[in-house]
Amino acid sequence: MGTVVSAVKGTRDFYPEAMAIRAWLYRVIGEVSTSFGYQEYDGPFLERLELYAAKSGEELVKEQAFVFPDRGGELITLRPELTPTLARMVAQRQKQLVYPLRWWSFGPFWRYERPQKGRTREFFQWNADLIGANSPESDAELIALCVAFFRRVGLTPNQVGIFVNDRHLMENLLNGLGIEPERHREVFRLIDRRDKMTAGAWEEYALSVGIRATQLNDLKRVLDDRELWRESSSLQRVFAALVAYGAAEYVHFDAQIIRGLEYYTGTVFEGRDMDKEGRAILGGGHYDNLVADVGGEPLPGVGFAMGDVMITLILEKYGLLPPWNPAPADVLVTVFDNEHLLKSLEISQVLREAGLRVIGYTEAVKLDKQMRYAHRAGIRHVVIAGPDELAQNKVALKDLQTGTQTLLSLNEVVAMVKAQASVG
Amino acid sequence: MGTVVSAVKGTRDFYPEAMAIRAWLYRVIGEVSTSFGYQEYDGPFLERLELYAAKSGEELVKEQAFVFPDRGGELITLRPELTPTLARMVAQRQKQLVYPLRWWSFGPFWRYERPQKGRTREFFQWNADLIGANSPESDAELIALCVAFFRRVGLTPNQVGIFVNDRHLMENLLNGLGIEPERHREVFRLIDRRDKMTAGAWEEYALSVGIRATQLNDLKRVLDDRELWRESSSLQRVFAALVAYGAAEYVHFDAQIIRGLEYYTGTVFEGRDMDKEGRAILGGGHYDNLVADVGGEPLPGVGFAMGDVMITLILEKYGLLPPWNPAPADVLVTVFDNEHLLKSLEISQVLREAGLRVIGYTEAVKLDKQMRYAHRAGIRHVVIAGPDELAQNKVALKDLQTGTQTLLSLNEVVAMVKAQASVG
Repeated sequence: MGTVVSAVKGTRDFYPEAMAIRAWLYRVIGEVSTSFGYQEYDGPFLERLELYAAKSGEELVKEQAFVFPDRGGELITLRPELTPTLARMVAQRQKQLVYPLRWWSFGPFWRYERPQKGRTREFFQWNADLIGANSPESDAELIALCVAFFRRVGLTPNQVGIFVNDRHLMENLLNGLGIEPERHREVFRLIDRRDKMTAGAWEEYALSVGIRATQLNDLKRVLDDRELWRESSSLQRVFAALVAYGAAEYVHFDAQIIRGLEYYTGTVFEGRDMDKEGRAILGGGHYDNLVADVGGEPLPGVGFAMGDVMITLILEKYGLLPPWNPAPADVLVTVFDNEHLLKSLEISQVLREAGLRVIGYTEAVKLDKQMRYAHRAGIRHVVIAGPDELAQNKVALKDLQTGTQTLLSLNEVVAMVKAQASVG
Repeated sequence: MGTVVSAVKGTRDFYPEAMAIRAWLYRVIGEVSTSFGYQEYDGPFLERLELYAAKSGEELVKEQAFVFPDRGGELITLRPELTPTLARMVAQRQKQLVYPLRWWSFGPFWRYERPQKGRTREFFQWNADLIGANSPESDAELIALCVAFFRRVGLTPNQVGIFVNDRHLMENLLNGLGIEPERHREVFRLIDRRDKMTAGAWEEYALSVGIRATQLNDLKRVLDDRELWRESSSLQRVFAALVAYGAAEYVHFDAQIIRGLEYYTGTVFEGRDMDKEGRAILGGGHYDNLVADVGGEPLPGVGFAMGDVMITLILEKYGLLPPWNPAPADVLVTVFDNEHLLKSLEISQVLREAGLRVIGYTEAVKLDKQMRYAHRAGIRHVVIAGPDELAQNKVALKDLQTGTQTLLSLNEVVAMVKAQASVG
């Protein structure tokens, strides 16, 4: 055996066990999104680089996007996020769409990052957006949607939380500290980095970007103030709405939440493990003018994205991943010998059409080998259709779990397998 | 309004109506695959170019694949097909996996083709493979799986068929015509092109690649012979098994089916519209040594792929696409005024937790505007929760379809909406 060609770094192979988790996540996300009236959509996975020029944040596009020229020479990007595509799609049909618009999606994205715990270069993301509404209560709806997802997968407020802030509030505070508007972007970046550095390194960083020592103390006081949200009428309404949505126990104010993407203009939020370990689970916020940036007319909105990698780690940590059932089928129909091969295929099809998941062995190998296959694959029920059984118009059904073997008609096989599938 | 940034040529935007079709296709494919005991898996969407070097066929990789250097300089390919990834994944865990292995997948692929009817550069594909079995009956199972899909979506044997051939049979026939083995590849290509050219142009092409006039007549006779399969014991068994699977009425022998991919070694098949309009719906075949080519030990297998574009066109042509329900929710909970906004959000959450799909309006705009939204979005039921209703601990439920308005408790709202959803 030679060396197997290796996979691309930062990508994942989804063997059935891992795929079952991704498929489950997609299904649960769909159920939760649908319960709030969101409709599923998707964009292309390739977009022109130009689409991201407007607002995606320099780091995301220049440093992290996979960009390449296609055979026509045009610069193509493997989408690093969905919001610019959403903006393009809304702008294209801006007059026909019905607002407020609620859309969700689950699909692949690519970022050229250093692969590490919680990060892969190819990942899946849940996106949900509410477009054409412009109230703190709209922002709260998206947070309530995240909370509904947490509840649905069994995550408690002790395990995960949503940390909320408002960029307007932060701008006002920076102004109050005497930090000029043209430096806010830089200081936002500084605030965003605080949890990712040691206290000493962060203070040094702060001083190096021109924050004075007195400002630094004030800034630290402000960032640690859990009651600061009371100065924002918008955040007051967000939190009141979250009480109405029954979501408040998961939600916390945090003045350090900034979010990197440049299109956010008001409420911003981030989902995290309560022990603050690892990366954010999800992130989102309010935007005023995203659609206008790609050529449409201004439309406000609010949205978030949740990657599959962190949430899967968190669910694993708390033992909340769905149990894996390795059995590919309810029943294996074995082949007695070459002479009875076609009869066995016929039986497999009858059982299948009766609603069972059925594998029919397709080779007349020794029965032992077929039984060993059933055992190794985790298939509980095995049908044996030899001349003796068929002479009575029946088959033998062997239950590998109990070891019992019963002579049954095909209708009886269906009934018994269905009964045991629903019990065990 | 400026010019909207355009999408990449050959990609598609999946607005909710188109997305509903893709999601339905994925669901149906999953149901059918699962009924045959296939497990869902997926590979990365990016692979190293090297993986395709072995067997994908020169045209596919050199002419059609999107290939680009990543930031480390390595040549990366947007996967143009799944089989090489499957081979890599099986080779990586060759000793642990349980054979025969049945896997299915549905995901995106990319080929740089001229966009035209039935082709896009970014498309989705159903793949199913049975690995580690090596009998004509195994090949037949995959064809039966395709037929089960056709049945499940309502396509009849008058509308679509599966055309089957065997490469061994064809090799023997070419030998019989005096065409040397080293020229078979070229002649297979010629045969593959016959349906895509005029008779005259094809004959000219044949002569130009060195087929003599007498050979040409024999070749044409062979290609038109519907009974030729009787000369292949393998095809005899494939067709007998398809009778046992109840799939025979969809299946036809066709000596012109070759399939472009070079890894096929025995049975090959293709799904087509019976009027032979357009491209193939699906294509597949038997392979002997795919896993060995990427560094594993030899394992035989059989598999097929079905793209989403042609099958969607066919389903549309025969009126078999599922009906589109534009309503994003069962109920809209309106907001009476600013004072009652939170109460409305609370009601929306109660209805949602009772199992309804609910949109809660998130702004206290005029009721007229909210009703107009419900009407335009196609939402049938509207809840109005004003002071009069709330004073009686009830809400008004307006049915936009019948025009009736009823004063109800929230429990009664849930019961009524559920009853009407199941009727209408």
